[in-house]
Amino acid sequence: MIVGLLQGSGSVDNGENYVKDEFQNTARKKLEGIAGSFHKLASSFDYMASPKTILNTEDMQLVLEDISTNLCKNCKKCGVCWERNFNQSYQATWNLLEIAKGKGNVTVDDMPDMLRLQCIQVPEFVEEANRNLSMARLKMVWHNRIVESREAVAGQLGEIARIVKDFSGNLCDTGEVIELKRRKINQKLRVHRIKVQRVLMFERENRGMELHLRARCKSGRCLTTKEAAILIGNALEKRLVPREDSRNVIGREYDDYVFCEDANFKVLTGVSRASKNKGELNGDNFSFLYPDSQDVVMMLSDGMGSGSEAFEESETVIELLEQFLEAGFREEPAIKLINSVLVLRTENSMSSTVDLCVVNLCAGTCEFVKVGAATTFIKRDHFVESISSNSMPAGILNQVDYDSKSKKLYDGDYVIMVSDGVIDCVEDEDKEGYFIDFIKNIPFKSPQEIANAILSAALEKHGYVPADDMTVLVTGIWKK
Amino acid sequence: MIVGLLQGSGSVDNGENYVKDEFQNTARKKLEGIAGSFHKLASSFDYMASPKTILNTEDMQLVLEDISTNLCKNCKKCGVCWERNFNQSYQATWNLLEIAKGKGNVTVDDMPDMLRLQCIQVPEFVEEANRNLSMARLKMVWHNRIVESREAVAGQLGEIARIVKDFSGNLCDTGEVIELKRRKINQKLRVHRIKVQRVLMFERENRGMELHLRARCKSGRCLTTKEAAILIGNALEKRLVPREDSRNVIGREYDDYVFCEDANFKVLTGVSRASKNKGELNGDNFSFLYPDSQDVVMMLSDGMGSGSEAFEESETVIELLEQFLEAGFREEPAIKLINSVLVLRTENSMSSTVDLCVVNLCAGTCEFVKVGAATTFIKRDHFVESISSNSMPAGILNQVDYDSKSKKLYDGDYVIMVSDGVIDCVEDEDKEGYFIDFIKNIPFKSPQEIANAILSAALEKHGYVPADDMTVLVTGIWKK
Repeated sequence: MIVGLLQGSGSVDNGENYVKDEFQNTARKKLEGIAGSFHKLASSFDYMASPKTILNTEDMQLVLEDISTNLCKNCKKCGVCWERNFNQSYQATWNLLEIAKGKGNVTVDDMPDMLRLQCIQVPEFVEEANRNLSMARLKMVWHNRIVESREAVAGQLGEIARIVKDFSGNLCDTGEVIELKRRKINQKLRVHRIKVQRVLMFERENRGMELHLRARCKSGRCLTTKEAAILIGNALEKRLVPREDSRNVIGREYDDYVFCEDANFKVLTGVSRASKNKGELNGDNFSFLYPDSQDVVMMLSDGMGSGSEAFEESETVIELLEQFLEAGFREEPAIKLINSVLVLRTENSMSSTVDLCVVNLCAGTCEFVKVGAATTFIKRDHFVESISSNSMPAGILNQVDYDSKSKKLYDGDYVIMVSDGVIDCVEDEDKEGYFIDFIKNIPFKSPQEIANAILSAALEKHGYVPADDMTVLVTGIWKK
Repeated sequence: MIVGLLQGSGSVDNGENYVKDEFQNTARKKLEGIAGSFHKLASSFDYMASPKTILNTEDMQLVLEDISTNLCKNCKKCGVCWERNFNQSYQATWNLLEIAKGKGNVTVDDMPDMLRLQCIQVPEFVEEANRNLSMARLKMVWHNRIVESREAVAGQLGEIARIVKDFSGNLCDTGEVIELKRRKINQKLRVHRIKVQRVLMFERENRGMELHLRARCKSGRCLTTKEAAILIGNALEKRLVPREDSRNVIGREYDDYVFCEDANFKVLTGVSRASKNKGELNGDNFSFLYPDSQDVVMMLSDGMGSGSEAFEESETVIELLEQFLEAGFREEPAIKLINSVLVLRTENSMSSTVDLCVVNLCAGTCEFVKVGAATTFIKRDHFVESISSNSMPAGILNQVDYDSKSKKLYDGDYVIMVSDGVIDCVEDEDKEGYFIDFIKNIPFKSPQEIANAILSAALEKHGYVPADDMTVLVTGIWKK
C-alpha cells in the first residue's frame, strides 16, 4: 500500500522518516506551546516591585506620620507644633529623618534648632524617630526578601520554559533512520531461531548507532540480549551492547529490544574522605552517575559550614543533580534550577558548591562545570593540568555564577576532584602548586589508591587534623 | 525492504504504527524524566517551616530578652531584678507576656504584683513589652508571607511536573494510524494534477479523523486546500477542512498539509458591557478563544475592585488562560498554575474570579469551570438552566478552590455568562430567579441582541447605574 502511493523520488525507508517527522513535528509544536505558556507565566512577574536599597519618600512620610501619631498626638503642645507651626515642624522633622537616614541613628544634638526649642519631649522625640526608622528598615529587609524570592520564581519559570523548549527540539530525535544490512541481521538471528518482526536503526550525534528490534525466540531456544548484541554487531561490523533498560533474555512473545553501539572508553573510580569533626556527618556529598552507557558523571557538592546542616544542603544538591542529569537535562539549566530552589528554600541563606564533570565515553571528552568549587586536576602520566574557577557557591545569588570548560581525555588519564577542605589543609602560598607536584609523582595506577594517597598527603600537611570536611574523587579512563 | 522483514502477522500499515510507537515511547520516557525532575524539585520544599498562627516559645524568649536589653540594662536596679531575683523576674515577665499574647496589649494593671512592686519604671516596662510584642507579631506576618510563597512555589512546580507528565501520555498521540482508501484519495487528487507523495490518517479520540498529506501541484495548476479538503472528503465520505495552521494553496514544491474532520456544530457570539465608573476601564476581562476547529472557549475574569488595578489583574488571568488553553493544557492545571502566580506576585493580595466554558463542537458537550465566578445560564427555547458555584476567587488561597461541571448542548442552545456586577444590579431576594425568568422570555435569536437585552434589563433594575463593572457573554450553538 505504501509502495502504491510512491510516485516521487521516495524510497521505502523514507516512509519511516516521514512518519517519524510527522510525529516529531506534532510533539515539537505541543512542547513549544507548553514552553510558551511557562514563559508567559514567568513574564507575568515583569514590572513587579524591585528590591530597595534605601527608604524612599513614601517610606519616610510614613515614619514621620508614625512619630506624630505615636508621640505628639498625646502631647499638650500638639496644637502648637502640628497645627499652628505645621509647615516648619514638618520640614524640621523631615530634616532630622534625612540625617538619621544617613547616619543610621540620631541624637538630641542632631535635632534642628527650631524643633529642639519648640518640642517639650526632646529625648522621647529622638527615641521615637530612631525606633520608627529601624521599623521601616526592618520592613524594607522583609520586602526585599519577598521581591527576591519573586525574582527567583520568575527566573525558575523562565528556565523551565527554556528546558521544555530545548527538549522540543530533540525529543523524538533518536537520530535519522538508516537503512543498513537489515537482511543480514535477519539471517544471523534466524540461525539462532529468533524471529524478527521489525528492525529500525538510527544514527545518534556523538553517540554512535542505536538499533530497535521487535523479535521473539522460537520455542525450545534461549538467547540472551548480550549474545544477540554480538550477533547483530557481527552483521553490522560494529561493537553493540543491549541498552541498560533492555531485558536480559529474548522471550517467547514478540517484544521490543534496543541495542546501542558500545563506548570506546571505560572508567574505574575511587573515593577517599574525612569529616572535620570525627563521628559527625561529612558536609560534602558526591555521586558517580551513569545516565547511559556513553556517559559518566562525577559530582561533588560542599555544603557551607559542616555537620548535619551542611550535609543536608549538599545532599539536596546532589540528589537534584542526579535526577536532572538522568532525565537528560544539560548541565547549565540543571544548575540554574537547583540554584533557584536553594535561594527560595533557605531560611538563613545556606549555600553549596557544585563541582560537576561529565565524561563522554564515546568521544573521550570531558565537560567541567564549577559553581564555587575547588580546583580539579587531570593527571596524564607525569603531567598534571589544573582547572579552577572563581565563581560563587549556589544559593546566594538569584543569577547563579558558574564556569564551564571542555577537555579532551586520553587513554590512562585520571580526573581528580577535591573539596575545599582538601586544598585548605595545605598552608603554603601556592596550595595548588603543592598538589600538582604531589599528584605528578603518585606511583599508583588504581583510582582508589590515588584518592587515598591525596587525602593522606593533605592530612599530613595539616597535622592529621582535617581543615574542613574532605573528599577526593578519582576517575581513571581507559580505551576499551 | 520492510516487506522483506515481515515474517509474522504484521501488515504494511503496522510498520507505520511501529515507527510511531517507538518514537512515542522515546518521547514519553524523556518527558517522564523531566516531569520526575520537576517533581523532585517541588518535593525539595517538603519539611520546610510552616506558617505560624501564634508566637512560639522561642519568639517569646526573644521578646523577653529584648525588653531586658533595651530597657533594664540601663536601669540602676538591673542587678536586683536580673541577677539577684533573676528567676522570679523571668517568671513574672513571662506571665505578663502570656497575658499580652492573649489580650493583644497589656496595661500596668496586668503586671504581676512581684514585678510591679520591684520595677522602678513600670509604665516604660509595659510600653516596652507591648512594643516588642508587636514587633514580634510583625515579624511573624512577614515570616508567614515567605512561607506561603514557598508553598506556592512548591505547588507550582508540582503542577508543572503533573502537566509535563500528562503531556508525555498524549504527546505523539495524534491517534492510531488507520488504513483507509488511500488509493481513492490519490485518484481524486491526480485528476486535479496534484502529485501525492505520502498520506497518513489518524483517528483522534472525540475529535474525528486527521489526515496528513505530502503533496505538490503540477505546473500550470492551482488548487486551494479548501478544494482539496472537499475532494479528499468525497473520497472518504466525510466532511473535511484544512487545519487552521495549514496554508491556503497547494504549492509547486512538495510540502505537508493537514486536514481534519469538520465539526458538527458552529457558534455565534455576542458581548455587552458597562463600566462601574463611566470612562474608566472595565475591571472585567473576557475572551472567546478557538484553540482548534473543534473547540470554542468562553472566558470571563472579574478583577476584585474596579478601575485599572482590577483591569490589569483580570487581564493577566485572561492572557495566561488563553496561552495555556491554546497550548493544549487542561482547564484545571491551567487554573492552578495561574492561581499560584497570583498568590506569588500580588503585593496586596489582589484576586480575580475565573469563569470558563469550553464547548466541544464535535461532541456538542460543554465544560464549565468556576473559580469564585457568578452563575451561568443555559437557554434552551423557553427552558433556562443555571450553573452556580460557591468557590473563592483565585489569588487568595494557595490551594485554589474551583467547581467544574459538564453539560450536553443541543441545536439552538445559548450559553450565557455574566459577571457579578450584572447579578448584583438586581436587589430582589432571588436574583438568579429574576434572570432565569427574564432569559426564558427573551424573543431574540442573535447572541448579540440577547446580550444587550440582559445588560439593559439588569441596568433598568438598578436605576441605570451599574452596580459594578458589568459583562454579559452569549454563545449560541447550532448544528452545521
